[in-house]
Amino acid sequence: MRLVLGQLVDALGDAVSTDAATLVAAQADKSGHRSASAPLAVVSARSIADVQSVMRIATATGTPVVTRGAGTGLAGGAIASAGEIVLDVARMDRILEISEADQLAVVEPGILNGRFNEILAARGFWFAPDPASRAISTVGGNIATNAGGLLCAKYGVTRDAVLGLKVVLADGRLLDLGHRSVKGVTGLDLTALMVGSEGLLGVIVEATVRIRRAVPGTVATIAAYFPSVTDAAAAAAAITSAGIQPAVMELMDSASLEAAATLLALPGISTGEAHLVVQTDGPAAQEEANAAYAVIGSLGGRAALSTDLVEGERLLAVRRSMHPAMERLGTTLIEDVSVPRSALPAMFAEIVRIEQHYGIRIPTVAHAGDGNLHPNFVFSGTEVPEKVWQAADELFGAALRLGGTLTGEHGIGILKKRWLGLELGDDQLDLQRQIKQVFDPLGILNPGKVF
Amino acid sequence: MRLVLGQLVDALGDAVSTDAATLVAAQADKSGHRSASAPLAVVSARSIADVQSVMRIATATGTPVVTRGAGTGLAGGAIASAGEIVLDVARMDRILEISEADQLAVVEPGILNGRFNEILAARGFWFAPDPASRAISTVGGNIATNAGGLLCAKYGVTRDAVLGLKVVLADGRLLDLGHRSVKGVTGLDLTALMVGSEGLLGVIVEATVRIRRAVPGTVATIAAYFPSVTDAAAAAAAITSAGIQPAVMELMDSASLEAAATLLALPGISTGEAHLVVQTDGPAAQEEANAAYAVIGSLGGRAALSTDLVEGERLLAVRRSMHPAMERLGTTLIEDVSVPRSALPAMFAEIVRIEQHYGIRIPTVAHAGDGNLHPNFVFSGTEVPEKVWQAADELFGAALRLGGTLTGEHGIGILKKRWLGLELGDDQLDLQRQIKQVFDPLGILNPGKVF
Repeated sequence: MRLVLGQLVDALGDAVSTDAATLVAAQADKSGHRSASAPLAVVSARSIADVQSVMRIATATGTPVVTRGAGTGLAGGAIASAGEIVLDVARMDRILEISEADQLAVVEPGILNGRFNEILAARGFWFAPDPASRAISTVGGNIATNAGGLLCAKYGVTRDAVLGLKVVLADGRLLDLGHRSVKGVTGLDLTALMVGSEGLLGVIVEATVRIRRAVPGTVATIAAYFPSVTDAAAAAAAITSAGIQPAVMELMDSASLEAAATLLALPGISTGEAHLVVQTDGPAAQEEANAAYAVIGSLGGRAALSTDLVEGERLLAVRRSMHPAMERLGTTLIEDVSVPRSALPAMFAEIVRIEQHYGIRIPTVAHAGDGNLHPNFVFSGTEVPEKVWQAADELFGAALRLGGTLTGEHGIGILKKRWLGLELGDDQLDLQRQIKQVFDPLGILNPGKVF
Repeated sequence: MRLVLGQLVDALGDAVSTDAATLVAAQADKSGHRSASAPLAVVSARSIADVQSVMRIATATGTPVVTRGAGTGLAGGAIASAGEIVLDVARMDRILEISEADQLAVVEPGILNGRFNEILAARGFWFAPDPASRAISTVGGNIATNAGGLLCAKYGVTRDAVLGLKVVLADGRLLDLGHRSVKGVTGLDLTALMVGSEGLLGVIVEATVRIRRAVPGTVATIAAYFPSVTDAAAAAAAITSAGIQPAVMELMDSASLEAAATLLALPGISTGEAHLVVQTDGPAAQEEANAAYAVIGSLGGRAALSTDLVEGERLLAVRRSMHPAMERLGTTLIEDVSVPRSALPAMFAEIVRIEQHYGIRIPTVAHAGDGNLHPNFVFSGTEVPEKVWQAADELFGAALRLGGTLTGEHGIGILKKRWLGLELGDDQLDLQRQIKQVFDPLGILNPGKVF
């Protein structure tokens, strides 16, 4: 270990930190999970060459490496433990190119999604992946987890926005994957394979991503209240069935709404009520919003609609208060199952069943446009109680039975490892492990995560 | 060989054909290329179980297998030779499910893209991947090549439309990849890896694909003529830069236009003129078309615009006559390089240079919205002359230098194998070969293709 540290310091100088606070910070992410012991060192890479140096030393010495950006993950995917090198790419945060003509940008992995979007906005462009963490999460982390967000039904997931990647392999070699053109089918699509690979296959050191021209037209926002979550889910389904394509369609069940109403001192919310927020954009925004408003009314919702930006923000306030509202209740494990849109009511029914069976409340928000639910397990203390894991286990089983998935956008990391086989099956799991081995024969990249 | 044939007949009965005409048909595709010798047998699979039987026998006997759909490939990717089993999935052509609520369909691989779209259209939906071959190519083949088409800049490539796949592995095991939900990030994205894998990794036996609601609003079509291809390319770039997102934007250079004009007996075309066709759709179709029309006029184009469907079809006639026009000139090798949009003028300049150097004409059409060019090498006879390959070699080199790719949508197959390393580099090529080996340790799946 001392040998490894010496080699790192020799090669990378003051980019290597063994400062206690720095090491402790790398033991946790935003999942609430924390590793049992501090890593060996944190290397704050400034360049591709730095990353290559780290990986060469790691390979030569068989030392595990955990790549880390802003540490905002929700699955423990970038948490480090004893004996591991943390390869921090947060300082590699430059925008190397913005091509308006080719509608692409080339960025380093550490740039924050929100910062990147601010710079693009000034030029009339935007980067579509919009995880709720966008203000604090990095583009590299978004790519490593194939991050989703609120806009995915209309604007796609992160994978759809990645054209090419530069990746440093476990042994320090630099790969250049993908292309700058819209199309390209030369060989196997390793760019797509890297997206969502959670640090298992290589270190993403540069990304060529699609940028979009700012959407013209107004943005219309509708905030609606329904007597029950089933009614709200039915309205969401009816909106999609009516041929309306909202940019945002967010659903809060009664436990979520109750917590938000308490936090915001919101008047007039009855017990059991659920909340649905819809935003439309583009040239047909007003027309689509009117149609959605009519659907909501016909299904028993009371709603407000506005195309005013300030008023629109006010209508979003309840949904935006979800996280602070949860934080007031206790420690939160934010789950992330995803089901086909039509299965949303069934999934909410399963959540009610699990709540009753375990005698707990599971406030749940859903990206209703794409079927991704975030059930929040709230508990006291810092360790997830076994009862919560049992309830989560039932939740995962239900999502899979409904044709869904364990994780819509957060990833497997450490927290969902034990359920991976349940979704993939043994044959696929075995193939995935073998692919991991092709990229990382020594098993030094983010060991103990995912598999 | 006789042993293999016996096992196939025992297991699959009259699904196995050794009829001479059937074998000969499997030696070619639409690339113009033909293998030197007939395959062992063609098995026309009717079910997943049939495919599994074939693969089990192939693995037990070490016999190579070439999966084949409609045989419309343009890269020789589904061409079979002596000693190979052709696994024909064209008869597996059922639509197993259409879910309007979940905006997805589950299909067998042999369904024709055009047929699938006819059935969807009757329900107000469509499947976005639109290769020019859509009337005759299968959805399975579209997935195996990650097919592109005319609409990709606005509506994405095939990969963007695939949610999940059932795949039979080389040893006959059945894998279930992906999910029915819009989002899902459990483990490595093997669904995306299968898309475009050209039969190297497994046999696609079922696909869960996104379907879209029919685009509301009018379709506006503009047909424009410019003094030169450089002017037409500049107009295409200016249309994109103006924030217009055409559904279709097709460019024909002067050699293409000349051939089409001859075929259609088109009056009033001057030497050197180039053709640009633009279609806009959606709620802003008319507005976008007006803006594009103004851009074209300001850059010296003479154009006609119509929102009438019949007139729109008439305006597309010149572009649609490209293939028949080429067929009258001789045998055609259709190339498929792709470059960043901004490099289109430079790529056209390279083509002119190569034409002059080799004393040949290379009529070229381009999907100008996404930078994908199809230079047509025309020759007499059935064998591609070495001079044409030399010219193609220069073409590929130029596309790569401009930040592009060897193949935008046709694939590598047999025809571009020798250039694969030029684009991927040795390290990536080596990784790709190792991944192939994970899926197919005996090397029996489509041997001799791509790698």
